[in-house]
Amino acid sequence: MRVAGVHRRTIWLADDGWTVEVIDQTRLPHAFAILPLRSADEAAVAIRDMIVRGAPLIGVTAAYGLALAMRADPSDTGLAAAASLIGEARPTAVNLRWAVARMVAVLQPLAPAARAAAAYTEAARMADEDVETCRAIGAHGLGLIETARHGGRTVNILTHCNAGWLACVDWGTALSPIYQAHDAGIPVHVWVDETRPRNQGASLTAWELAQHGVPHTLVADNAGGHLMQHGEVDLVIVGTDRTTATGDVANKIGTYLKALAAADCQVPFYVALPGSTIDWTLTDGVKQIPIEERSAREVTHMTGRDADGTVRTVDISSPGTRAANPAFDVTPARLVTRLITERGVTHASRAGLQALYPEHAV
Amino acid sequence: MRVAGVHRRTIWLADDGWTVEVIDQTRLPHAFAILPLRSADEAAVAIRDMIVRGAPLIGVTAAYGLALAMRADPSDTGLAAAASLIGEARPTAVNLRWAVARMVAVLQPLAPAARAAAAYTEAARMADEDVETCRAIGAHGLGLIETARHGGRTVNILTHCNAGWLACVDWGTALSPIYQAHDAGIPVHVWVDETRPRNQGASLTAWELAQHGVPHTLVADNAGGHLMQHGEVDLVIVGTDRTTATGDVANKIGTYLKALAAADCQVPFYVALPGSTIDWTLTDGVKQIPIEERSAREVTHMTGRDADGTVRTVDISSPGTRAANPAFDVTPARLVTRLITERGVTHASRAGLQALYPEHAV
Repeated sequence: MRVAGVHRRTIWLADDGWTVEVIDQTRLPHAFAILPLRSADEAAVAIRDMIVRGAPLIGVTAAYGLALAMRADPSDTGLAAAASLIGEARPTAVNLRWAVARMVAVLQPLAPAARAAAAYTEAARMADEDVETCRAIGAHGLGLIETARHGGRTVNILTHCNAGWLACVDWGTALSPIYQAHDAGIPVHVWVDETRPRNQGASLTAWELAQHGVPHTLVADNAGGHLMQHGEVDLVIVGTDRTTATGDVANKIGTYLKALAAADCQVPFYVALPGSTIDWTLTDGVKQIPIEERSAREVTHMTGRDADGTVRTVDISSPGTRAANPAFDVTPARLVTRLITERGVTHASRAGLQALYPEHAV
Repeated sequence: MRVAGVHRRTIWLADDGWTVEVIDQTRLPHAFAILPLRSADEAAVAIRDMIVRGAPLIGVTAAYGLALAMRADPSDTGLAAAASLIGEARPTAVNLRWAVARMVAVLQPLAPAARAAAAYTEAARMADEDVETCRAIGAHGLGLIETARHGGRTVNILTHCNAGWLACVDWGTALSPIYQAHDAGIPVHVWVDETRPRNQGASLTAWELAQHGVPHTLVADNAGGHLMQHGEVDLVIVGTDRTTATGDVANKIGTYLKALAAADCQVPFYVALPGSTIDWTLTDGVKQIPIEERSAREVTHMTGRDADGTVRTVDISSPGTRAANPAFDVTPARLVTRLITERGVTHASRAGLQALYPEHAV
């Protein structure tokens, strides 16, 4: 999508044809900085330190990290070491292991001399595939936004966390239908949940919508229910990190609360996802999906710009306060109006998902 | 309640017998500072700048402000001027106007020379009445906490915003049953919602619970649904700023979302209130209660201590981001398990309220 009027992806090759460049997302929204990655080590650090984040982008960064590794040492030992280094950069990222395994499966059979070129090709293919998947999610979701339009009225859409292009290579998942509606001339306005405790809504979603010119308003996570009670939200679209075969979705903490409000206020609640996030072995999200407990410091500390423009981190809590930080919650399928996938829109149910992904029918 | 081991109220007279002292709540939790009020002007500023906050404490501060005014100028003109000055210090505080009207009704008939002493007496009476009301709310709510105790297990209670003693003179409303349970030896643990955007949970509730020694854990507002889904919350207790005759409650933004989660997870959702917050003219909270829209800066900016201990305010949002800040939401009576009042525990319904307040029966 656009940044300062220029179309960008979140990851690309520099003019030298081999250096990988990414947006340093830890510095958003306070600075737009591009970080070159010139080794597998640098790619692993970018993943570990959340310079890149979002499952699809982590996967593609891992693939390019292996390409950088093959450029330095394409031996079997070099491949195994790089796969291990990058594969362990974030312990809970399923997509990371999937991407590394795919790259190893492509590279292992090749002669070492052929591996670097093949790795760059495969990484580029993965990036393009992700763009196409996200574009298709957006095209299918666009129809739901058109349906919500009554006359020439602006369609008000609430989203939680960042499931935008910054989490992917381009388009995003939850935000893809919104970008496509905006680009098609449908008047849209986005309520952006700030998404405590990491504030991805305030720092990433608000930033990327602003850069692309999509009207939006930041709100505290607490505000969504009130807005829905008063008819200020026509529909909700969020992403999902993991989806059960029965349509339960695990997404950023607080998603469940918004789904409850949407159900109570008869507001459609849509979840956008690539089929790759479906875990066909799971049938009960609340019981089966383990929830990552993250650092208490994410709750007690905040980073922002002071009056002089200096970026500072401050402790907003009472000294010595203990905090808990469950990072995700599970929204049961009964609260999800429809799932939006790259293959179409479907019911949040086993039957709905199997109709789109018959290869997984039991 | 206790601060550093010493029992305190939120407002009291200094040793000189006339200076009013309050806790500067704008400096919590980063500093505990006592502010002397020596004139009606200083009392008005304390109310306006939220040095004191919470409807009961605002009312008592207004009363003492009039006592300070009578000490300086007890004439009819002096009384009228002070009533106007203090009564307008916070435009939306209903309790403030009520307290000023009560003081004027007591003072107006008296000879000017008798007004200062009478004003101090009446202000002290209002403070004591509030303490007794809050104590009674706690005594009634204590029974609900005892009921939730299974064997020797700790009772986990979630609360939102600050309805503690800092908002009153002592005890608090929602926190009063918790303090009384803790003091009675019932093991309690409080999940403290940080309560964005003003963070009253993180800065006030966590602080006052810590000072009194009540175990607690700070969480992002987003976390409550997840905790309830997993049996980590035995009951919820919140306060209310305004209650309809039918039991709908207007409280800090985000309360409605927690009530929805409690209903979905079969967790009892209690609302503690003095009868004075009931507006007997209202029958539909969502439609009839106007919701204050506060400054966007409360959403975009945060105050905390940096690594050196300096208190700083930082902008956490993308430059130029527009934010909306509805400050309250309405929780319909159907989501409220019981109301806890100074007269007892009752159903959130017209019948339930009229049984306790028969003088308001229609």
